[in-house]
Amino acid sequence: MAEKRARPGEFELIARYFRPLARTRGAIGLADDAALFRPRAGNDLVITADTIAEGVHFFHDDPADSVARKALRVNLSDLAAKGAVPSAYLLSLSLPGNWTEAWVGAFARGLKADQSRYDISLIGGDTIKAAGRVTVAVTALGHVPRGRMVLRSGARPGDAVFVTGTIGDAALGLRLRQAKITAPDGGKGLLRRFLHPEPRLGLAPVLRRHASSAIDVSDGLVVDLNHICEVSAVGAEIGSHLIPLSAAARRLIAMEPSAFSAVLNGGDDYEILATVAAAAAGGFARDARDAGIAVTRIGRIMAGKGPPVVKDATGRTIRVSRHGHTHF
Amino acid sequence: MAEKRARPGEFELIARYFRPLARTRGAIGLADDAALFRPRAGNDLVITADTIAEGVHFFHDDPADSVARKALRVNLSDLAAKGAVPSAYLLSLSLPGNWTEAWVGAFARGLKADQSRYDISLIGGDTIKAAGRVTVAVTALGHVPRGRMVLRSGARPGDAVFVTGTIGDAALGLRLRQAKITAPDGGKGLLRRFLHPEPRLGLAPVLRRHASSAIDVSDGLVVDLNHICEVSAVGAEIGSHLIPLSAAARRLIAMEPSAFSAVLNGGDDYEILATVAAAAAGGFARDARDAGIAVTRIGRIMAGKGPPVVKDATGRTIRVSRHGHTHF
Repeated sequence: MAEKRARPGEFELIARYFRPLARTRGAIGLADDAALFRPRAGNDLVITADTIAEGVHFFHDDPADSVARKALRVNLSDLAAKGAVPSAYLLSLSLPGNWTEAWVGAFARGLKADQSRYDISLIGGDTIKAAGRVTVAVTALGHVPRGRMVLRSGARPGDAVFVTGTIGDAALGLRLRQAKITAPDGGKGLLRRFLHPEPRLGLAPVLRRHASSAIDVSDGLVVDLNHICEVSAVGAEIGSHLIPLSAAARRLIAMEPSAFSAVLNGGDDYEILATVAAAAAGGFARDARDAGIAVTRIGRIMAGKGPPVVKDATGRTIRVSRHGHTHF
Repeated sequence: MAEKRARPGEFELIARYFRPLARTRGAIGLADDAALFRPRAGNDLVITADTIAEGVHFFHDDPADSVARKALRVNLSDLAAKGAVPSAYLLSLSLPGNWTEAWVGAFARGLKADQSRYDISLIGGDTIKAAGRVTVAVTALGHVPRGRMVLRSGARPGDAVFVTGTIGDAALGLRLRQAKITAPDGGKGLLRRFLHPEPRLGLAPVLRRHASSAIDVSDGLVVDLNHICEVSAVGAEIGSHLIPLSAAARRLIAMEPSAFSAVLNGGDDYEILATVAAAAAGGFARDARDAGIAVTRIGRIMAGKGPPVVKDATGRTIRVSRHGHTHF
């Protein structure tokens, strides 16, 4: 194929942009068939794989460094929800025919920034050129002390239901991005929440200490709580008025009440939803605060397996679509 | 979106087709944010991630079960080359908008067959619907006794260079598939080699015992040997007449001598290229034979870093393109 300007081949691309990100000995400079990973003694490995794709999880014109960071962070968020400390990741980057070196350079800079931020290293993966759009598949590895991974299946009737941070911002940011709604101030903070999720890694040890179950809010608050209800064989009741909202979300919803559905069903917040035995709720809230993470009690786990029930401040049940935001 | 026939959503798809493949406790039935993996005591983990994409590594009309098996096997081949025993994998499946349940069902059956064949379990991953074509990203995990992973970097001057099986079949199969060449008998065996690589897992313990370095032949014989030369800081000399060819490949090349370039530069054979100290060569060949795997000595490692030199039976140097088959 004739090209206007020579672009590096696969080996050069890896050497130039990805090898500098392989900071551990086990990564073998990305110059082998596979990575060597020596798990910490007395620990279990927690492994997750999540892919983000152009046109589904990010937009064509999103900055490449933001795409890289989102791909990493959605995976780190899964580790955080399991009480794990991240240590390494593998990356499979699928580029369309018209990829540019500038894009890949910015993408690698985004990875580098987040590697420093989260103290992790690239240890393997591959780069392919395929028809279609950019797809970024990440597999992230983390550690938990042996037997201490926090599961979805441990919720028990009577447990308190907590969430971190504020809910709905990312979904409102997406709607702003799609020009489905408008914000008087442009909604910069909400747009940022969609593009740059913040994995709650600081909560991991607090979850290990106190939580009976946990999940990250990626599909939507009600859908993700339903995941816990299903595998824990319980129900749940939450108060719509108890769900923590950002000032920006509150302003938007005041203008357009229907946007509240983004709070219940929107995805991509990457906050943590956790259940905590009632007796441990005070300790959980205190330890979370000490870790610098706001947590809010929004409801409780009920006996009897079933989808979560959402009630408003007057005790009336709110009908909720159970589909959430499945990226599918 | 209105559809003629309802297709399952992401959660149903996973429950119906992929949950039955999650056979280990750590996979948590694919019903959690992440998988739990408890590495074997005294072992290192070997991890690899390779993606295959429609139109690049397989054709649109290849059977879905073959696509699944190829995606798994190219990863297992990397583990085999490192002397590792595979144990689990994660799968990120990216489907185009017009996916069908029949395709996914056949894909899952292909995974199931190879899980039994290689005694491995699906432990995590995700399924997304993205624009473009099918992309299958696999991360495979294997074990080696601590400190015993076989690297690319251990080749030393004087070492013998061995390959398993026969070389060039997959690349000739690809050319047949693309109708660039024709075979009098249709070339069924060659076509099968392209579609169904056979990872040489039986060689893993033999490599750990004897090999100074190893790599799987995925980019092309000369290019992959060059990978070893580069990271081992050595050169190599191989005899073109020593390279083991299948009867089908020999027939094709007799008819069309230019097809021999597929032997030197074609990829996708997924045989193992290994270097072995001269004193260990006899033991390596014997142990490989005992493991039921044919190995052939094709040359030796030379002092002085440089690309491999290929000579014919008369000692004349053959000029070889150094590009190989990079899938990029």
